[in-house]
Amino acid sequence: MTPLDAAQIERIRTSFAQQGAMHTLGAELTRIEHGAVDLCFDWAEPLTQQHGFIHAGMMSTALDSACGYAGFSVMPAEAGVLSIEFKINLLAPAKGQRFRCEGRVLKPGRTVVVTEGKAFAIDNGQEKLVASMNCTLMAIYDRPGISGR
Amino acid sequence: MTPLDAAQIERIRTSFAQQGAMHTLGAELTRIEHGAVDLCFDWAEPLTQQHGFIHAGMMSTALDSACGYAGFSVMPAEAGVLSIEFKINLLAPAKGQRFRCEGRVLKPGRTVVVTEGKAFAIDNGQEKLVASMNCTLMAIYDRPGISGR
Amino acid sequence: MTPLDAAQIERIRTSFAQQGAMHTLGAELTRIEHGAVDLCFDWAEPLTQQHGFIHAGMMSTALDSACGYAGFSVMPAEAGVLSIEFKINLLAPAKGQRFRCEGRVLKPGRTVVVTEGKAFAIDNGQEKLVASMNCTLMAIYDRPGISGR
Amino acid sequence: MTPLDAAQIERIRTSFAQQGAMHTLGAELTRIEHGAVDLCFDWAEPLTQQHGFIHAGMMSTALDSACGYAGFSVMPAEAGVLSIEFKINLLAPAKGQRFRCEGRVLKPGRTVVVTEGKAFAIDNGQEKLVASMNCTLMAIYDRPGISGR
Repeated sequence: MTPLDAAQIERIRTSFAQQGAMHTLGAELTRIEHGAVDLCFDWAEPLTQQHGFIHAGMMSTALDSACGYAGFSVMPAEAGVLSIEFKINLLAPAKGQRFRCEGRVLKPGRTVVVTEGKAFAIDNGQEKLVASMNCTLMAIYDRPGISGR
Repeated sequence: MTPLDAAQIERIRTSFAQQGAMHTLGAELTRIEHGAVDLCFDWAEPLTQQHGFIHAGMMSTALDSACGYAGFSVMPAEAGVLSIEFKINLLAPAKGQRFRCEGRVLKPGRTVVVTEGKAFAIDNGQEKLVASMNCTLMAIYDRPGISGR
Repeated sequence: MTPLDAAQIERIRTSFAQQGAMHTLGAELTRIEHGAVDLCFDWAEPLTQQHGFIHAGMMSTALDSACGYAGFSVMPAEAGVLSIEFKINLLAPAKGQRFRCEGRVLKPGRTVVVTEGKAFAIDNGQEKLVASMNCTLMAIYDRPGISGR
Repeated sequence: MTPLDAAQIERIRTSFAQQGAMHTLGAELTRIEHGAVDLCFDWAEPLTQQHGFIHAGMMSTALDSACGYAGFSVMPAEAGVLSIEFKINLLAPAKGQRFRCEGRVLKPGRTVVVTEGKAFAIDNGQEKLVASMNCTLMAIYDRPGISGR
C-alpha cells in the first residue's frame, strides 16, 4: 500500500468529520493509505440489537465508511463518492469491546470502484472476523451538493 | 397480509424495544403483520453522511430491522432470529424529513427466511424510493443468548 | 410498460442472437418492452446441477440476460451495456419442464441502471417463483469492442 | 489447507460428474482440499455474451460450483449442499483463452457455510482477476433427492 499525500489525507479526514453517523459510532480513522482505510469504534449500547451485540446495520455503517474512504483515496481530488450498493455477510455475532473495520480497494476505475471490507470484533483481547462486505462505489463529478470537499 | 395475534405482536415490540440501535434512529414500528413490518424515523444529524443525507449504513440499520422483524413474524414463537447476510442498492440520495422502511417476507422456511425491504424518503410530502434491500435470515433454536424472548 | 420502437427491439434481438450462452440455454425472448424483458427456456440435461435441477449459475445466466436487456432497453441507442454485479437468491430448487425469467428496471440512470429479475419454474403447468435477482448495469460509451451494435 | 481423504475426494468428483452444467463448460477440477476447490475451463463460443467474452452467468456457474464444492468439502459425509444465494462482482471483461475459478470457505458452520470465489482469466499467459463471488451454502440433511451421494 502506498502512503497518500497530506492533501489527500486531509480530504478524507474532513469528509469523515462531516459524517454525523461516525460521531454516533464514536469511530476514529486508524489507517489511511492509498486504497486502504481502517476505522475503529467501541461497543456502546446505542449501537446494539436485541441481544446486546452490535447491530448488523451499525456494523454496515462502519464498514461502508471504511470502504467508501478506501475508494475515495484512489479517486481524483475533484471527485465525490457515493455507494451504489453493498452486501454484507454476518459471519458471527458482533460480540466484543472494540471493533475494527478494514476497507480495501479490489478494483479501481474511472467511474466505478469495487471495494471489500472486513470487520473484526476484539473480545477480551482476541480478534475475530465477524463480518465481510463487498461495496461498489461511484465517483461523482460536477454534481452540486456531491463533492470531494 | 394476515394480522398477528397479540402475543406475536408483543414479542416483536419487546425485541424492538431492546435494540439500542432503534432508539438511536428514533425509529417506531408503524405496521406489524404476518410477513410485513414497517418502521419510520425522522432525519437527524447523528444519522448523516458527509453531504447531510441519511448514511447508507443507517438506512441499512432500519431496513435490516424491518426485514428481520418481518421474518421473525413468520417464525415459531420459540425461535430467535439472526441476519445471515443482506444486500442493499442505494437508488437515490436519502434526502428528506422522514423515512419509511418496509420489510416483507419473500420466502418463508423452517431454517432460512428470505426477505425484501424498500426504503422511501418523504421529502416535502413527496415519497420516493431511495433504497432496496434483500436480506436472508436464519431461525435459531435452543441457543443460549439468542432467543425469541 | 411502454412499447419500444422497431429499431430498439431489433437492437436487442441482434445482441441476444450474438450471445452464445443464450443458444446453449435454448432461450427465446418472449417479451421486449421499455424496461421489461422476459425470456424462456426448457429444461435440458446440459443445464443441470447434481440433483437434476437447473444449475443456479445457468439460472443466473438467463436472469442476467433478462435484466441486462431490460436495462439496455432504457439506454440511449449508442450505449453498450455491461453487468457490474448481481446477486441472486435461490428460493426453491429449479424443478420444472420450462422456466421463465423476468428482467425489470428498478432505477434507470445515465451511467448506472439498477434492475430486478425473477425466475419461475413451470412444473406440470404450475408456475413457482424459484429465484430472485438484483443486477446493476453500466452504460458504456465510446469503448471499442463494447457497443450497442 | 488440509488434504481430504480419498472418500471425500471421491464424493466431490462423483457429484461434479453429475452436473450437466460442468460438462457444458468443459470444466475440470484442478484442486480439491479441505475448504478449497479450484476448477478450470477453456473459452468456447457457447459460453459467450454478445461481445465474445465469457457470459457473466457462465462465469457464475463455474464460481458457484467451485464455492459449492469448497463448502461441501467441510460438511459431514451425509450432508447435501444447496446454494442459498450468491453475489458476483464483474471486475473486468472475461477475455482470455482459459479461466480458473477458486472457491474458498470463509466461515464453516453446522447449517450455513459462507464461501468466497475468485475468477481469473488467462489471456496470452497473463492471469487477471475478472470476477469476485460471495456464496452462502446450506447443508441439507435427510431430504429425499438432495443428498451427498
